[in-house]
Amino acid sequence: MKKDIFIGLDGGGTKTKLLVEDAEGNLLGSARAGPANIRLSVSQAWDSIFHALHSALKQAKIEIDDPTINLHAGMGLAGTEIPFACKEFLEKPHPFKSICLRSDAFIACLGAHNGQDGDIIIIGTGVIGYQIFENTESQVNGWGFPHADEGGGAWLGMQAIRKTLQWQDGRGDKSPMLEAIFDHFNNNLNEMVVWANEAKSTNFAELALIVTQFLEENDPISLELLQLAGKEINKIGMALEKFSHKPLPCSLFGGIANFIIPFLEDSLKSRIKERLNDAPKGAIFMIRKQVLEK
Amino acid sequence: MKKDIFIGLDGGGTKTKLLVEDAEGNLLGSARAGPANIRLSVSQAWDSIFHALHSALKQAKIEIDDPTINLHAGMGLAGTEIPFACKEFLEKPHPFKSICLRSDAFIACLGAHNGQDGDIIIIGTGVIGYQIFENTESQVNGWGFPHADEGGGAWLGMQAIRKTLQWQDGRGDKSPMLEAIFDHFNNNLNEMVVWANEAKSTNFAELALIVTQFLEENDPISLELLQLAGKEINKIGMALEKFSHKPLPCSLFGGIANFIIPFLEDSLKSRIKERLNDAPKGAIFMIRKQVLEK
Repeated sequence: MKKDIFIGLDGGGTKTKLLVEDAEGNLLGSARAGPANIRLSVSQAWDSIFHALHSALKQAKIEIDDPTINLHAGMGLAGTEIPFACKEFLEKPHPFKSICLRSDAFIACLGAHNGQDGDIIIIGTGVIGYQIFENTESQVNGWGFPHADEGGGAWLGMQAIRKTLQWQDGRGDKSPMLEAIFDHFNNNLNEMVVWANEAKSTNFAELALIVTQFLEENDPISLELLQLAGKEINKIGMALEKFSHKPLPCSLFGGIANFIIPFLEDSLKSRIKERLNDAPKGAIFMIRKQVLEK
Repeated sequence: MKKDIFIGLDGGGTKTKLLVEDAEGNLLGSARAGPANIRLSVSQAWDSIFHALHSALKQAKIEIDDPTINLHAGMGLAGTEIPFACKEFLEKPHPFKSICLRSDAFIACLGAHNGQDGDIIIIGTGVIGYQIFENTESQVNGWGFPHADEGGGAWLGMQAIRKTLQWQDGRGDKSPMLEAIFDHFNNNLNEMVVWANEAKSTNFAELALIVTQFLEENDPISLELLQLAGKEINKIGMALEKFSHKPLPCSLFGGIANFIIPFLEDSLKSRIKERLNDAPKGAIFMIRKQVLEK
């Protein structure tokens, strides 16, 4: 009988994280690689995955084509909301005996609550709320930028640009934070406008660092923007609670999350729990379950 | 002595309008062509300009290389805020004895007030406020989308998408207008999200038609969005008034303007005056002045 080896993989817009475990749950290796967003590029996603896989299998001292093992991969990737991207991704040749492909939010939620029911809210460049409850998944926000993902890094950075432009042209007040944003563009309105017209969500998100920095100095506009962001995250918490009809534990992820917590309402704050495991571990729960149920 | 012929040209993101007049101010011809935004493409701008020029000169029975005439062109083009684009544009070969190049907002303001001091606010896909006062020009907003141009067509369409997503995922209420937006995407959340992730400002602006349609039916969210848009336009009116230290006549332009007027404050409403002339005529004022002052 062949030996089962489990791969857990979390692929996002900027990086891929991968774990290798044996059937008993021993960690054999781990690795990181570049982006794996299948909406943006299926071939780049496979490149990143193979890069991380080769590196982690080497650590584990496993040959990828060893005929005595079965490789089972659980994958949570960004972009799985596009059915055509999933189809294209799964049609490419790969060394896995079995694959389970879901969204990166799904495996993060599975990992955070050790496979039990629960909510997560990821507040990074974008914002997504996700729930697994009685085998039903629900998503709140996470629909993209600039039309959604309110309260995340890209949204905060764009609001900072808006407020700076409003101050500059006489529609709004200034603040030390806005002066720092303007200084970032050499106090040159034209330079800022040219930049903003080309900026992607990740570019706007870089400015969120300036917004959060000035919160410590009680900057009134930083405070205003983080309060607004908190309201947007509260709406996600309330929407998730409507799906489960009861409060579930909720784990927060993402670089902006810690700055938002002080601005959340008690009803959501009281539900916040440290995550039990990270997303690649959630991907391993997922693939183990699929293989066991066969 | 050579005969002077004046060309007035208004080039925007979607179309170019051109007039030909003789030295006495008689209209000899007019024509339209495609976009002339020099930020997006200098060569396309020149293509559109030459296309309209040849057509209008044909009407005027003028040969472009007639050695007995001098062609003088006043041009208001989108994208002149980019100095490099202006340089590249002016370095291309052209048949004009003289050129005066300014922004499309400048010539619209000049035309609207017959060369006298005044304000304009253009509420189309984007939003820009512009003032000419005692030979000083001021701009308020018009800095681009999605980080600015609040209250315009692209902004309205994006808010409609936001509100539809919020209703769909449990963060907000529905309304007949939001149902119409969702129906526009075959009531398919995935289809709407894929569209929104690729949408440009002009695409979002197409949805503004649905927002304004439902205003007539007292749709609560249409009403809310147009009230918010009105507030943004009021801020522009107030900022312009600060620059002139007194109320000037203000002309409104753009496809969304008429829908916003009911939501403006009296201080701005009382300043609204019909425009006296359109933007190509403003471009002719500009080039005549330059040639006369030589």
